[in-house]
Amino acid sequence: MTVYGFSSSGNCHKVRLLLEQLGRRLDQDYRWVETDSSRGQTRTPEFLAKNPNGRVPIIELDDGRVLAESNAILCWLAEGSPYLPADAWQRAQALGWMFFEQYSHEPYVAVARFIRGWTPVDSPRRGAELSRCLERGHAAFAVMERHLSDNAWFTGPDYGIADIALFAYTDVAGEGGFDLTPYPAIRDWLARVRATPGFVAMPEPAAGAAALLARID
Amino acid sequence: MTVYGFSSSGNCHKVRLLLEQLGRRLDQDYRWVETDSSRGQTRTPEFLAKNPNGRVPIIELDDGRVLAESNAILCWLAEGSPYLPADAWQRAQALGWMFFEQYSHEPYVAVARFIRGWTPVDSPRRGAELSRCLERGHAAFAVMERHLSDNAWFTGPDYGIADIALFAYTDVAGEGGFDLTPYPAIRDWLARVRATPGFVAMPEPAAGAAALLARID
Repeated sequence: MTVYGFSSSGNCHKVRLLLEQLGRRLDQDYRWVETDSSRGQTRTPEFLAKNPNGRVPIIELDDGRVLAESNAILCWLAEGSPYLPADAWQRAQALGWMFFEQYSHEPYVAVARFIRGWTPVDSPRRGAELSRCLERGHAAFAVMERHLSDNAWFTGPDYGIADIALFAYTDVAGEGGFDLTPYPAIRDWLARVRATPGFVAMPEPAAGAAALLARID
Repeated sequence: MTVYGFSSSGNCHKVRLLLEQLGRRLDQDYRWVETDSSRGQTRTPEFLAKNPNGRVPIIELDDGRVLAESNAILCWLAEGSPYLPADAWQRAQALGWMFFEQYSHEPYVAVARFIRGWTPVDSPRRGAELSRCLERGHAAFAVMERHLSDNAWFTGPDYGIADIALFAYTDVAGEGGFDLTPYPAIRDWLARVRATPGFVAMPEPAAGAAALLARID
């Protein structure tokens, strides 16, 4: 199996994190083809032939079949494992959090980080759009904090794919300009995720993005 | 079971359409509590106690358990029915389209319709934001058109929940200002969905919204 992904993308790191936690090893059980969406590598004719929506991550099986959308990939990889609840209601709750992540969280939490790290310092996006991302991102964190005040995990009684989906960009929210101090339950949950067996952190971004992310605005 | 939904919302209509196609009948098998998100009814303390994210639709079981996110609700309702593929890979493909719908389609196709029908005629959102919705919505339609040139359905070999998810707002895209003439495969697919057994159309919006949606800008 081949993963096409951009190492600095939380959506892509989700796939690597689950693969590692499932005990699958890079270059033994799966290949990783680095595909830098910030430099147009998801808009080439070759890539668009695999995913017409022009986004990473995707997985490609050895027979050529392709699956897109990070959270759909998590569902497929986790089939039959403890990371996907066996109970239908609980599985639907996990899916609910994964749709929440893609609709109410990622478009703000991930995009704030993208604007800060991958757009020029004089980008117009650093104005009203970044402010809106911060406002909506905090609204998403408030919803998460409320859930975590009564629950250890998002997936169900145990850690799993909904936690992986929400962890990816929450763990690097500081790079987007978010202060997680007001969310003690989220900070405790982030620490619990980091302590799960087989956990791997997202690689550091390349130097240019890292310098931009480290700026104090 | 109780559905809390806004009848003019495609996300909410998805749930009603699947329930009807599963043979469940309003006021016999489920209740519908009209919850007008355009008038703040999803932001009351009572509603936020059910869904802290303040969005419809949600379903509430008779024992009080709640499930949010339209596409997660579809997955749960369709469990064990022909509307959810039994094959794990095909189920993941259906989920991939449902995540596509919430990330790359709904935020533009649905929001364009919302801006035109539910914001004042002098709303600043009718400028750059509406233009961006139209541009991104057409990009989503191009991806759908390409898929439908080789496939009858989004869910798999048969009609199912990914079709319901994508149908809801595509069928009323004209109200958002989209012209679907360039997408013959989408128009054929919309007709095929409307011909599925038990199909019910979304109710007409209330008079005020209908008048705004009928305006020629």
